[in-house]
Amino acid sequence: MAKPIAALAPPARLLCGPGPTNVEPAALAAMGKPMLGHLDPGFHAILDEVVAMLAEVYRAHDGIVLPLQSTGTSGMETGIANLVEPGDTVVVGVSGYFGARIAEIARRHGANVVEVAEEWGRHVPNERLVDALERNPEARLVAVVHGETSTGVEHPLEELGEAVRGTGALLMADCVTTLGGVRIDFDAWGVDYAYSCTQKCLGAPPGMSPLALSPRALDRIEGRTRPVPFSLDLQLLRAYFVDRPAVYHHTAPILHVYALHEVLRQTLEEGVEQRWRRHEAAGRRFAARAEESGLEVLAEPDHRLAPLTAVRVPEGIDGKDVQRQLLAERGLEVGGGLGAATPPIWRVGLMGPNASEETADEVLGALTAVLEGERVPVAG
Amino acid sequence: MAKPIAALAPPARLLCGPGPTNVEPAALAAMGKPMLGHLDPGFHAILDEVVAMLAEVYRAHDGIVLPLQSTGTSGMETGIANLVEPGDTVVVGVSGYFGARIAEIARRHGANVVEVAEEWGRHVPNERLVDALERNPEARLVAVVHGETSTGVEHPLEELGEAVRGTGALLMADCVTTLGGVRIDFDAWGVDYAYSCTQKCLGAPPGMSPLALSPRALDRIEGRTRPVPFSLDLQLLRAYFVDRPAVYHHTAPILHVYALHEVLRQTLEEGVEQRWRRHEAAGRRFAARAEESGLEVLAEPDHRLAPLTAVRVPEGIDGKDVQRQLLAERGLEVGGGLGAATPPIWRVGLMGPNASEETADEVLGALTAVLEGERVPVAG
Repeated sequence: MAKPIAALAPPARLLCGPGPTNVEPAALAAMGKPMLGHLDPGFHAILDEVVAMLAEVYRAHDGIVLPLQSTGTSGMETGIANLVEPGDTVVVGVSGYFGARIAEIARRHGANVVEVAEEWGRHVPNERLVDALERNPEARLVAVVHGETSTGVEHPLEELGEAVRGTGALLMADCVTTLGGVRIDFDAWGVDYAYSCTQKCLGAPPGMSPLALSPRALDRIEGRTRPVPFSLDLQLLRAYFVDRPAVYHHTAPILHVYALHEVLRQTLEEGVEQRWRRHEAAGRRFAARAEESGLEVLAEPDHRLAPLTAVRVPEGIDGKDVQRQLLAERGLEVGGGLGAATPPIWRVGLMGPNASEETADEVLGALTAVLEGERVPVAG
Repeated sequence: MAKPIAALAPPARLLCGPGPTNVEPAALAAMGKPMLGHLDPGFHAILDEVVAMLAEVYRAHDGIVLPLQSTGTSGMETGIANLVEPGDTVVVGVSGYFGARIAEIARRHGANVVEVAEEWGRHVPNERLVDALERNPEARLVAVVHGETSTGVEHPLEELGEAVRGTGALLMADCVTTLGGVRIDFDAWGVDYAYSCTQKCLGAPPGMSPLALSPRALDRIEGRTRPVPFSLDLQLLRAYFVDRPAVYHHTAPILHVYALHEVLRQTLEEGVEQRWRRHEAAGRRFAARAEESGLEVLAEPDHRLAPLTAVRVPEGIDGKDVQRQLLAERGLEVGGGLGAATPPIWRVGLMGPNASEETADEVLGALTAVLEGERVPVAG
């Protein structure tokens, strides 16, 4: 190296973009506790508790739940890789970046993908998905994004499961921006595979993807004929995380498991329903006050995702420059649009410890203050 | 839940198994620093420093290095998934669990696998690998385990690159138990793809896999025709980690990146060569003193892996029970054998902060004390 690199000194940030959110202080503290080995009986006991608490938060008791050692995207790909075989038909609801990503990953794994598309900001109506299923009765999977992080739209997941249950298809739901922040009732709604992350509504650091599988999904996996990538193989992961005595698969991210344990504990202590209400109140307040101040919310009114609100960048404003000012001058992170297809938007996440009406007001105040400054030179 | 789950209170452990090792205190402290978003310019600057330091530690400057967001096994699979296409021939040296895992993963990805096998405890001679290459001139990859964690054997990697370089095959090396603890000279030795982990000789928590790729490996990836699993796709990961302005791929495990930054900084401050010497001295002392006290080291004498020593469980001793006693009574973790094919062994890792002659003596003292206790009832 030319010269020694200094120790990190990152500035404090209020993280109100699409995630990660700020980490719960108690979860950070948990990561400083003595590290156990991944085969230590004491660590197995911790994993058992994590799995039991995850089942409560997902409301998934009929099949299995486990925390994957990787990103939300790996959770998405793990579902496709295990539930789909080359040549299978997959119906995907696409009205944002993450729906499109599901479709892309399914194609990479050899699926025949039927996209049911809507424009960004709208949800994909369940009737259109059911119609696509009827026209493609061989379909093996229907995939939707419960909370579309790129647009702030919530899919009406509750009503889809029953319609899918009568077909040969399983139902997969992207719960990356909903688990712990928006009502999920995995068993009762008839979802077969769901994946999430730890760095949004749960308030832990990024690094794991909590999964839930129904008995139907487990049957599908046991009956498959083609091999799955080793690191995504749910039969091996199940043996490691759930069916102890454990076999070795990989070294779990011990300290992240500690953090996840702590935020799940907090979630159950707060009450899952109360946590949903808290996220709902914060998001609704931000959206309402944004509209009061003349900003336009991207998502259609009846399908808004509380933890993440996208607002359109007003005409004549440089959205990226506003983000830069918020970050540099106020230590506040909000997101911009994601991908080439996005309209010009800001994305404001109020998740985990930041899911409060106070933070909603703080972010809206900062955003409107910067916008006032931006407008002056234009008007003057 | 039946009743509330208590906060974690894991006991302190001296982790001297095959990994994870104890985390460097400064790396733990780094994880408590303010969390940035994964698209924050300040976080990009941190990633740049991590990549620059990783290149120093791997001695890999010609191609690219990057920290994968996952386990060492994912690093292994990422190499296979990107460098091999279905039907390709792959030559794998197998004399332990991880060589066998490479072969299994290559088969899952459709490769025609040529295993060059030796018994556990021996290395796979380079002449045998070169001979297999000559008999399979269509081979596209030769894979070896630089440090076989299941046996404590070090592969003579330095001499293999030149022989492979004259063929159409690339050279892949498993450096999970060597990076930061055993000499690696990625460019000079002609290695094309290497992967490691963070929780062994580097002394960070588990959760990332540092990779290195040669220009030849990058050419191979750019020329491939079949898609790669999205979350393992090195062209996308390269765009995210190396070729900024970054495109979005996934949310990096921010706090683990902080920890990795800190241990890489420490490694360069100590000096990479000095760090290798420290691991060598600790491992050699443990092996020598183990033999003095009548224990048999599994690895052949000229190919011992300093950071990990496997010793045979003596006749008449219950190896698992000894591990249980060490853990329960002394808070000391040592490993057992891995997988169904293992001989009865203990595996002792002296890695990262535990790579010292003092710790070597402490572990040997504890092991022999417990063995004395075990022998009494037999003798009496």
